[in-house]
Amino acid sequence: MTGEQALDTQRTGQRITECDLAFLLARIFRRNGCSERTATVLAANCASAEAAGSLSHGIFRIDGYVSTLRSGWVDGAAEPQIEAPAPGYLRVDARNGFAQPAFLQAREDFVARIRANGIAFMAIKDSHHFGALWPDVTPFAEEGLIALSLVNSFACSIPAGAEKPLFGTNPIAFAAPIEGSAPLVFDFATTSMANGDVQIAARAGRMLPPGMGVDSNGTPTCNPKEILDGGSLVPFGGHKGSAISMMIELMVAGLTGGQFSFEVDWSAHPGAQTPRTGQIFIGIDPEFSGGAGFVEKAGEFISRLSDAGLTTYPGYRRWKGRGTQDIGISTEDYRRLNEYAQGEL
Amino acid sequence: MTGEQALDTQRTGQRITECDLAFLLARIFRRNGCSERTATVLAANCASAEAAGSLSHGIFRIDGYVSTLRSGWVDGAAEPQIEAPAPGYLRVDARNGFAQPAFLQAREDFVARIRANGIAFMAIKDSHHFGALWPDVTPFAEEGLIALSLVNSFACSIPAGAEKPLFGTNPIAFAAPIEGSAPLVFDFATTSMANGDVQIAARAGRMLPPGMGVDSNGTPTCNPKEILDGGSLVPFGGHKGSAISMMIELMVAGLTGGQFSFEVDWSAHPGAQTPRTGQIFIGIDPEFSGGAGFVEKAGEFISRLSDAGLTTYPGYRRWKGRGTQDIGISTEDYRRLNEYAQGEL
Repeated sequence: MTGEQALDTQRTGQRITECDLAFLLARIFRRNGCSERTATVLAANCASAEAAGSLSHGIFRIDGYVSTLRSGWVDGAAEPQIEAPAPGYLRVDARNGFAQPAFLQAREDFVARIRANGIAFMAIKDSHHFGALWPDVTPFAEEGLIALSLVNSFACSIPAGAEKPLFGTNPIAFAAPIEGSAPLVFDFATTSMANGDVQIAARAGRMLPPGMGVDSNGTPTCNPKEILDGGSLVPFGGHKGSAISMMIELMVAGLTGGQFSFEVDWSAHPGAQTPRTGQIFIGIDPEFSGGAGFVEKAGEFISRLSDAGLTTYPGYRRWKGRGTQDIGISTEDYRRLNEYAQGEL
Repeated sequence: MTGEQALDTQRTGQRITECDLAFLLARIFRRNGCSERTATVLAANCASAEAAGSLSHGIFRIDGYVSTLRSGWVDGAAEPQIEAPAPGYLRVDARNGFAQPAFLQAREDFVARIRANGIAFMAIKDSHHFGALWPDVTPFAEEGLIALSLVNSFACSIPAGAEKPLFGTNPIAFAAPIEGSAPLVFDFATTSMANGDVQIAARAGRMLPPGMGVDSNGTPTCNPKEILDGGSLVPFGGHKGSAISMMIELMVAGLTGGQFSFEVDWSAHPGAQTPRTGQIFIGIDPEFSGGAGFVEKAGEFISRLSDAGLTTYPGYRRWKGRGTQDIGISTEDYRRLNEYAQGEL
């Protein structure tokens, strides 16, 4: 999990519970034009990422959220519209709002369709996703379902063999229930790195490992500032990772009817930072699998991973640690969040 | 596409049409215990891979097919059983036969369920897949549908962070319709290389690029023989590719109720080479997408790829070239195929 770091060694200024942090963040979202529902879900997403050590999607994102909301680019109070053109296909129009409140509004219907049909599809269009994806998929696994979610973003990744950025960071998130243990959950950008982690490295003045991206001339660089300043990331894993990223780009824009990453145009909204694209979900009910049953087989799978020398699996540490400790935030960050919340910033 | 090579420079001994090659191969399959239906579909798969230059799944596979059939490990005349526990979920029991005839028997029902529900799932268990996957998914795109297929195989890949092989080559194949052009189709192993390509390199005495696998001591090696002789491949793309491969392993075994790659045990059947595992399909009908419509957006996507400097896209060259030329096969290979077909080998 890129960006995960031990909490206590990094942030020692102020200690706060996840719940209190979410409360503070919700005030910031409300003050910047978000409806109660949108403020609550974005705050919960951001606080849970911070608590899990996914710093690239934690409070680091708040400046960007505020900036994009104030630019008028995104509607923090949008009322999503839901329709079901087929029993297993839900279409959600986020109407230029954030993806998560639109998703949550359709979620109960979606879960019912997964259970009734064995599989269901949800396409959210005209939406903005600026948070971690694992909070979207994990609850499905907690209810015994399998979920896969894909999001496109803005052109910041050069397809293998191409010369110009065209794909977004195009993350993929997957969650599956495991008998007697944490759900298996992964969530990663299909670029070499998450964009947020490049920004964090740039702020910290850290160089990146080789192979992450190119500068504005297309020359490979380890300098995160050169990647952000007219340069580009590349997909992970060469032409195979590029194919996965291509599939995500095509499926998300094509199946939602929303924008491709390369269509996002912020020029009329200075300060806008969130991609106005889409998000898709595939949900499967493993109750319908044959044989021994999914969760039991999944439990066996995890034991074999352990026998093969893996001390953990994706999602385990986050699940194990959740709600167990206060979050450490620097004094500077804490002050800044309070200023936002009180309208002083 | 790993293993694709210009045809005429490689194989010049005997020229044969794809149709005649499929006819010859079907005779081999029938003579080795396959039913007419199984023989026809396996021969078509193998001949189309050979014609497309996917050498790792072409006639190179025939020795393995014959050996596995003669070992009694796989039933070439199995009668698959199909059931639908939910409107969007088909379960197919291949009953220790090949995956493709089981798939084809359920295919019409599956397509009807995709169109009726918007999305459908098919889980094939107790099946053997020894061929290329793109012939399975491409016809969906030709009918205007999106298809994703995943297969697990046998333990030959060490998960990122582990010490022992546990995952199979675990290929993923995807197909989507493109307006006015070839479907976008990719098909690749989620290991660093396809196992067949490692075998081809070993036969040819060629070294592999660095990073493909390890020897029996776990030491990285570029020698394909050391990888095959007690060594192992690794997933493509580091921990992200490993997560994709893990997802495939878990979904295929878990949702079919079939075997994990690490459960495949050939010891009682000398000569057995095909993994007895499972295959899953997700099919989506893009007719239900909102906005401009999927195929139109997909056409636009392909133009933008071209503008960004990509001279082709996955699946294009194979589609463009199909049926247009004879296949060149070495005299030695042609003689061998005929001996198999006539029962002399």
